[in-house]
Amino acid sequence: MERTLHLENLPRTIELERDGDGRARLAYIDQRRLPDELVFERTGDWRAVVDAVKALAVRGAPALGIAGAAAVALWAGNAGTARAVARGCAGAGEFFLEELEPVAAETADARPTAVNLAWGVRRAVALARDLVASGAAPGEAADALYDEVKRMETEDEAVNRAIGDRGAELIAPGSRILTHCNAGSLGTAFFGTALGIVYAAAAQGKVERVFADETRPVGQGARLTAWELSRAGVPCTLICDDMAASLMAAGGVDAVLVGADRIAANGDVANKIGTYGVAVLARHHGIPFYVAAPTSTIDLSLTCGEQIPIEERDPREVLPRPIAGVDVWNPAFDVTPAALVDRIVTEKGTFAPGELEQALSSVRA
Amino acid sequence: MERTLHLENLPRTIELERDGDGRARLAYIDQRRLPDELVFERTGDWRAVVDAVKALAVRGAPALGIAGAAAVALWAGNAGTARAVARGCAGAGEFFLEELEPVAAETADARPTAVNLAWGVRRAVALARDLVASGAAPGEAADALYDEVKRMETEDEAVNRAIGDRGAELIAPGSRILTHCNAGSLGTAFFGTALGIVYAAAAQGKVERVFADETRPVGQGARLTAWELSRAGVPCTLICDDMAASLMAAGGVDAVLVGADRIAANGDVANKIGTYGVAVLARHHGIPFYVAAPTSTIDLSLTCGEQIPIEERDPREVLPRPIAGVDVWNPAFDVTPAALVDRIVTEKGTFAPGELEQALSSVRA
Repeated sequence: MERTLHLENLPRTIELERDGDGRARLAYIDQRRLPDELVFERTGDWRAVVDAVKALAVRGAPALGIAGAAAVALWAGNAGTARAVARGCAGAGEFFLEELEPVAAETADARPTAVNLAWGVRRAVALARDLVASGAAPGEAADALYDEVKRMETEDEAVNRAIGDRGAELIAPGSRILTHCNAGSLGTAFFGTALGIVYAAAAQGKVERVFADETRPVGQGARLTAWELSRAGVPCTLICDDMAASLMAAGGVDAVLVGADRIAANGDVANKIGTYGVAVLARHHGIPFYVAAPTSTIDLSLTCGEQIPIEERDPREVLPRPIAGVDVWNPAFDVTPAALVDRIVTEKGTFAPGELEQALSSVRA
Repeated sequence: MERTLHLENLPRTIELERDGDGRARLAYIDQRRLPDELVFERTGDWRAVVDAVKALAVRGAPALGIAGAAAVALWAGNAGTARAVARGCAGAGEFFLEELEPVAAETADARPTAVNLAWGVRRAVALARDLVASGAAPGEAADALYDEVKRMETEDEAVNRAIGDRGAELIAPGSRILTHCNAGSLGTAFFGTALGIVYAAAAQGKVERVFADETRPVGQGARLTAWELSRAGVPCTLICDDMAASLMAAGGVDAVLVGADRIAANGDVANKIGTYGVAVLARHHGIPFYVAAPTSTIDLSLTCGEQIPIEERDPREVLPRPIAGVDVWNPAFDVTPAALVDRIVTEKGTFAPGELEQALSSVRA
């Protein structure tokens, strides 16, 4: 079980940076092209970020939080400030905030289920409002927004490493772990949530092997999780989604680890389609089912999972060449009821789903 | 709910025929090319039939039964008789039977899980032995084998129609039925087993819609079931395998209907990988889970499902372009324990799994 982890082989997923002329731009891995090629896209255009989010070039709840804030920062640093400056000093701040509104709305609405996207946008907008209110010029606000996104990137990795440390305590030596979709470094700035726990537990020599569900229709497991784990040096076996039950029945799974796109106050978990089925199977086989997520994924404004909007995507993701007379249903997420979740691992602690609301309120208080 | 069923749009899947010179050949749909194109292959070479079986050009337990017997009949009608005749009359029958042995063994072993393949081969070999024992010349035996395969084709359709009629009694009006893989006309000579029940129930106006799991990695649901149902005029919605749980939770499934590749005496059911997971999900959601199969799929020589050999197939079915360091597990079947099966529908009656052994013994007695 002594294996060397090679986290240095994992690239950073999403990073705000400045080009040679000092202009802000977002560098991100185009995840549609993995595992065939590792390509970094770079753009200063907030709309290009929104398009990348819609097309799943950037995905994963924590990465979407950064992308949301970054879109706002890019708009502020480029078009937003330029237009406010052109308008002149009087009322430039108010004009800036006014124009920010539709930008923020369009970015937050790019995908409906993962709450982090809207959370990242809100965080950036709140900062912009504070800055303008305290007399900052649009250009100053833009610089501060840039710094805020850089802070979010650093925070995200720190949060993930904390989730990893806490979650690793749940993992017994020699564990074979099943995961669905990609809640890995590729779904965050760096390190990952569910796979963050894998990396932390693997560093302690506890991980025998990870089984990755391929996660149809987009294949985040087959294309991203398998690629990421093999690069990091974690033994990985890819299976089709419909093989997970057999693997469990054969005694091949000691724990299930997944991420989350939104968690309601009662502990119901929205995550990639298929997660709910895996949770039912895990319960049937007596296998613990753990969810890893930053507290930014927890939406205390929703009492239960039924209130979480579930995105339906293009049928061509399932059936690239339509068959006459055949319909397709393509929900991108499902909701796992709290009753099927054993523990939720956050950077602030590991909770039973039922403890979540009170625990987080007291942590915040 | 008044919809017209168009079974006349379904082609026959596998048929022994004679070419212009009277030589036996097997015509079969190359199912690897569906749904893009409907192509009939024709061959007089028994080895080509074995290759087609291994490559899944012909698949589905009942169709494999016919393919197994047809391979023997093709060998007998072509190479087998020719070689026996060349050897001369003295001992030609014994020589014919001796040479038949490795042909039968290779054919029966082409795929290990579906018992019908070996059953079809055994049926043909038993007939050949009887004929030779009663003094038939190889050429006469070959003609009789040809006729036997034609009888099996006719029998198969009759058996499927009986399964359809019996199974339709289990289906309530307005039913939304989930199926996994293809236990349809394409997996039989004609009509299908699980989809035979769909067709019989649809003819009675009882079927609201069929949801087809795509059935990774080979996609028999996406490529075959969806194609077949749309051609027959049955409303069909394709989903990914990892969406079935969500569909059930949303109240979208009234019954699950699947086929079988082998059923043990205790009612454990081997079927396409993923079936077991669907059975667990159906039980969790209180949805009846029905298995449709001819009695030729029931292997009373096995006391339970653990004894059923499970074929593992090429990893490239799951991952066409390997990723360095990523293993693949690709079992082609799984075993659903009898406890998760509500009823098994055969041409001889509908049974609880626990009644199967006694019921079939008494039917045979």
